[in-house]
Amino acid sequence: MDLALQLARASIGVSDPNPRVGCVLLGAGRRVIGRGHTQAAGSAHAEVMALRDAAAQGESTRGAIAVVTLEPCAHHGRTPPCCDALVAAGIARVVYAVEDPNPVGGGGAQRLRDAGIEVVSGAGAEASRELNIGFFSRMQRGRPWLRLKVAVSLDGRSALANGRSQWITGPLARADGHAWRKRAGAVLTGVGTISDDDPRLDVRLVDTAVQPLRVVVDSRLAIDPAARILDAPGEALVYTAQPDPLRAAELRARHVAIEAVPGPNGKVDLAAMLDDLGGRGINELHVEAGHKLNGSFIREGLVDEYLVYVAPKLLGLGRELATFGPLESLTDGVQLRFVDVTPIGDDLRILARPAG
Amino acid sequence: MDLALQLARASIGVSDPNPRVGCVLLGAGRRVIGRGHTQAAGSAHAEVMALRDAAAQGESTRGAIAVVTLEPCAHHGRTPPCCDALVAAGIARVVYAVEDPNPVGGGGAQRLRDAGIEVVSGAGAEASRELNIGFFSRMQRGRPWLRLKVAVSLDGRSALANGRSQWITGPLARADGHAWRKRAGAVLTGVGTISDDDPRLDVRLVDTAVQPLRVVVDSRLAIDPAARILDAPGEALVYTAQPDPLRAAELRARHVAIEAVPGPNGKVDLAAMLDDLGGRGINELHVEAGHKLNGSFIREGLVDEYLVYVAPKLLGLGRELATFGPLESLTDGVQLRFVDVTPIGDDLRILARPAG
Repeated sequence: MDLALQLARASIGVSDPNPRVGCVLLGAGRRVIGRGHTQAAGSAHAEVMALRDAAAQGESTRGAIAVVTLEPCAHHGRTPPCCDALVAAGIARVVYAVEDPNPVGGGGAQRLRDAGIEVVSGAGAEASRELNIGFFSRMQRGRPWLRLKVAVSLDGRSALANGRSQWITGPLARADGHAWRKRAGAVLTGVGTISDDDPRLDVRLVDTAVQPLRVVVDSRLAIDPAARILDAPGEALVYTAQPDPLRAAELRARHVAIEAVPGPNGKVDLAAMLDDLGGRGINELHVEAGHKLNGSFIREGLVDEYLVYVAPKLLGLGRELATFGPLESLTDGVQLRFVDVTPIGDDLRILARPAG
Repeated sequence: MDLALQLARASIGVSDPNPRVGCVLLGAGRRVIGRGHTQAAGSAHAEVMALRDAAAQGESTRGAIAVVTLEPCAHHGRTPPCCDALVAAGIARVVYAVEDPNPVGGGGAQRLRDAGIEVVSGAGAEASRELNIGFFSRMQRGRPWLRLKVAVSLDGRSALANGRSQWITGPLARADGHAWRKRAGAVLTGVGTISDDDPRLDVRLVDTAVQPLRVVVDSRLAIDPAARILDAPGEALVYTAQPDPLRAAELRARHVAIEAVPGPNGKVDLAAMLDDLGGRGINELHVEAGHKLNGSFIREGLVDEYLVYVAPKLLGLGRELATFGPLESLTDGVQLRFVDVTPIGDDLRILARPAG
């Protein structure tokens, strides 16, 4: 299962919106006779890749064991059900890590048992679920896993009072941030950050086969059509509350998609936006925004995970990590738990999630 | 040397203002025949304790090796020179970690060599120096090592906007903070923190033989004479810029010492205060103050170390870790390096020092 999980990780930046799945086939004496991981959407899943690998090596899969990180799918999507492929290949036993949360794709285990295959599960479930935390979120809640990334000084400043923020952290932390962007189906920011920094928000500092969708929250559709985020490789999508027709036409002429999700006070309805992104197949949403939009996501309870790079410096008065409050009582704060703390170069990377 | 360093650590909270020193005596076959560490000021040093230990066990020290974490002292202070005791005991070889920085006590190595003893040094030097970082600071700079302790949320808040800060971190982090107080010769705060929180600032959550001096920075001598910090066990000292005679008399009647160190703008001269604390034998100064006084220490470049407890929570708008700035450029920030990062209960303890 460790090898299967390792294969599954190779699907990062490849398989979206499909889950990251790895498969290992074991022949007599538990010898590895085939391995595979999920390819780009519409291409083969992990099980089929592993069967093809075995066939290419001239290995027979009759009576073999299939170790796979997610319950094999039972439905015809863009590809035929993996269950049927396993049955046809004469697999005797399937070991999978975690149940497929897909209400359509599920039921694979039963289908395998009905075909006389022995099925066991559970080992590696936690790791497989973590690797697919966005896929699980979209299947179970209809919206992406929202990861809020921010770089701050030790005293919690995301920018100076004059807006300067490039760069608070060092080059290794920035490259690590790009690896997290690569994980995501979409990278989101606000129009304020575009005015301040004009970021591209594409994946540049690590290799990638595809670019995440780039998303801008822009309630009044005020984005400069020359903004670099609209030009970088990949697709761009602007959520707005007031889709001024002239501006919208100008943006569409630049192949920018526009979606109106009006909420109260002329603002973008962030929860509705997340539902819409879920509908577009976004599993993980990587937010790199300013203190105001960060505060809005936090106030609405929409943040699933905080990816915080802390630089070894003090910046004094300036912009906060996220603007909300002031609170009356300490118990009104957002309670988190630290999931992981890792030094990255001179900086510190802290991964935190809402407690409880 | 590891054993000697371990013994030296037992001097924390005991030996101030003397350094933390451990000594191990090795007889034939490198067998441990005596061990000791520095006692309270005026009592025996580590070497003498180890010689006494050997004698109490009926061990002969003729030809033995003395392993000691600091160069044995050569001067008559409140106790006779350790060098002479080692010579008299017939020690053949002395292994010490680091040179004694005391301009008066130094020269021990030469004195031992003159007496025909073989002397080597260097192993354990870094650890011994770290353990005595305050003693080295006082000997070499005439002022204490200033450690600024603060508890903040992940977004860098040391208190809510309404001043509430009890408690941002959990019980284990608070107990750990008391262990750091115990290390210090003095614990310092500002009169603003006393108005807000009325802390005692004594060592309660860990065992200790003595209480650090408690120090208040109070430019206008506005402290409430009923403040708990003045009543807790141990001594209290108030630094002021304007020693109003009536208020001073009221405080002195409560056995509170008052020292006037007037600086510009009617404020306490913080650098002069540190020199005065050095003169009082304070090796490590533990600062637990509010954002304003923290900012003053930082602006004046007086902070040697930051002890930051980061709680897994977000508090939004509130008081910063330290008030200074706003800065014009990111390169104007205080550049630090992370020395240690350790989880303490649910919180994170970060130790940082100025870079370079």
